[in-house]
Amino acid sequence: MAVYTEVSDEDLKDFLGQYDLGEVTAFKGIAEGVENSNYLLHTTAGSFILTLYEKRVAPEDLPFFLGLMEHLAGRGIDCPTPVAGRDGERLRALCGRPAAIVTFLNGLSPRRVYPEHCRGLGAALAAMHLAGEGFRLRRENALSVRGWRPLFEASAARAHEVRPGLAEELEDELARLEAGWPEGLPEGVIHADLFPDNVFFMGERLSGIIDFYFACNDFLAYDIAVCLNAWCFEPDNAFNITKARYLLQAYRARRPISDRELAALPLLARGSALRFLLTRLYDWLNHPEGALVAPKDPLEYLNKLRFHSEVRGPGAYGLD
Amino acid sequence: MAVYTEVSDEDLKDFLGQYDLGEVTAFKGIAEGVENSNYLLHTTAGSFILTLYEKRVAPEDLPFFLGLMEHLAGRGIDCPTPVAGRDGERLRALCGRPAAIVTFLNGLSPRRVYPEHCRGLGAALAAMHLAGEGFRLRRENALSVRGWRPLFEASAARAHEVRPGLAEELEDELARLEAGWPEGLPEGVIHADLFPDNVFFMGERLSGIIDFYFACNDFLAYDIAVCLNAWCFEPDNAFNITKARYLLQAYRARRPISDRELAALPLLARGSALRFLLTRLYDWLNHPEGALVAPKDPLEYLNKLRFHSEVRGPGAYGLD
Repeated sequence: MAVYTEVSDEDLKDFLGQYDLGEVTAFKGIAEGVENSNYLLHTTAGSFILTLYEKRVAPEDLPFFLGLMEHLAGRGIDCPTPVAGRDGERLRALCGRPAAIVTFLNGLSPRRVYPEHCRGLGAALAAMHLAGEGFRLRRENALSVRGWRPLFEASAARAHEVRPGLAEELEDELARLEAGWPEGLPEGVIHADLFPDNVFFMGERLSGIIDFYFACNDFLAYDIAVCLNAWCFEPDNAFNITKARYLLQAYRARRPISDRELAALPLLARGSALRFLLTRLYDWLNHPEGALVAPKDPLEYLNKLRFHSEVRGPGAYGLD
Repeated sequence: MAVYTEVSDEDLKDFLGQYDLGEVTAFKGIAEGVENSNYLLHTTAGSFILTLYEKRVAPEDLPFFLGLMEHLAGRGIDCPTPVAGRDGERLRALCGRPAAIVTFLNGLSPRRVYPEHCRGLGAALAAMHLAGEGFRLRRENALSVRGWRPLFEASAARAHEVRPGLAEELEDELARLEAGWPEGLPEGVIHADLFPDNVFFMGERLSGIIDFYFACNDFLAYDIAVCLNAWCFEPDNAFNITKARYLLQAYRARRPISDRELAALPLLARGSALRFLLTRLYDWLNHPEGALVAPKDPLEYLNKLRFHSEVRGPGAYGLD
């Protein structure tokens, strides 16, 4: 929700001089994404987003992220497409940071999720998983099961500040997930952070997916699990089974979910809940005083974790 | 530089239902203005800015501000035009705040000011002063000479925290300004806050003026004095006489500056410097811990105040 890097007139002019985008008519910092500096760029050629990648994005991952967007857009997925300069390059430097221009995507991210949104989401998620096939780059999921213990250990000693007994509960859960994490499920490119603010709608129609900066190779069903957590709980923490059913039904209408994937879903959803709980816990305990971005509540994800721990089969997610 | 109020989907839909602006294609919080929440609104009818007025704007002043923009735009000034709903109203409520939609203005505010910018500024300022004639509403300038003493007294006891001796220097200056403040200079509607971030350019051509939320009735020459302070000092605090000359020459090519106005200019510029010094000093001493917006340095304006105190005639501003 913040612009971190101010771009001077000269820097902008030099940067845009490397593109064929006509004359700039507007350039405004926008409150989108918490990791990077994003500017709305209007030119006589259209609307674009100019992103400066701040320190939480590893520069060596950018060819994967930008290449993926280009790959997906080329296969009909509604996502931002990186724009090449006259030299053919899509990634260059601006104000000492990696920077890229992508096409502007119409639509609004839902501030409140309705069941219909989940139908569009399920269909788009499956389409994205299918379209990801053949993408030639790989990126490991650093925030999957092998990454959770170091994250946990970075916060364990102070977890009680957030809730007494939290460290013990997470330690137990982590051990169970490490022991039981599935193997051999269908893999592919996943978005890994498909929260409502990363999905645009025009009315009830999904118009696009943005923010691929956590995308990686992992179990496709793990992406479904992330979405169950991010889209199917109400603000009062109740699980909305209708939303889950719409999401899963729309997904499997495009890409079948195998029995093994379905059986693993509760565990994957626990893992996904733990993943967001751990990063939020870390940010909660370590955010600087007076930070621009308020940290998110880690305990929202403790509730989700506990919910999935009680799930005994796909019926809990609205499937027969 | 911050969006303060989050607008829900339902609230936005209800609000826009009162306008004939077609379908919404994008709605993004933008980092423009520090006083209000501003959203970029793309619809099938065009681009607009939706503003929610936060607590620093007095609701009773909004008819003046919105009416002024409409008046000026109707007389050929490039400024945002408030958009009326189907009921003819331009001002209504959104999320419990007064809110209005204005037209989107192309252009970029200069992050670095060049002399050419000051030529465009001078011409546009004079044109705005002339176009303001006949505007039927009035608003006193609460931040002119009569408003400074209460502001000073609110900070005097702690001014030494910013600089030893500051309170005494400001007290002396305030007494001199109160005693010598001119009377009977030509009056009209002034912008009163015409800093570079409130002026848009396309290349070297001025394309528009925004943010009329300090506009009021006062001496027209006081607006020139505000601009001398906001546009003609370099980042190292040096006064750039070329910028001042361009500004004043371009202004008087459209609206003559009388000898009395010219003679009063150094004093008006001292007053303008004191005005911004006092509000910055107050914000500096009273900003909440962890505030989203970093307070601006009050001492930048002490330097400007001292500069104008040494000025003995218009030659210092580049005029013969």
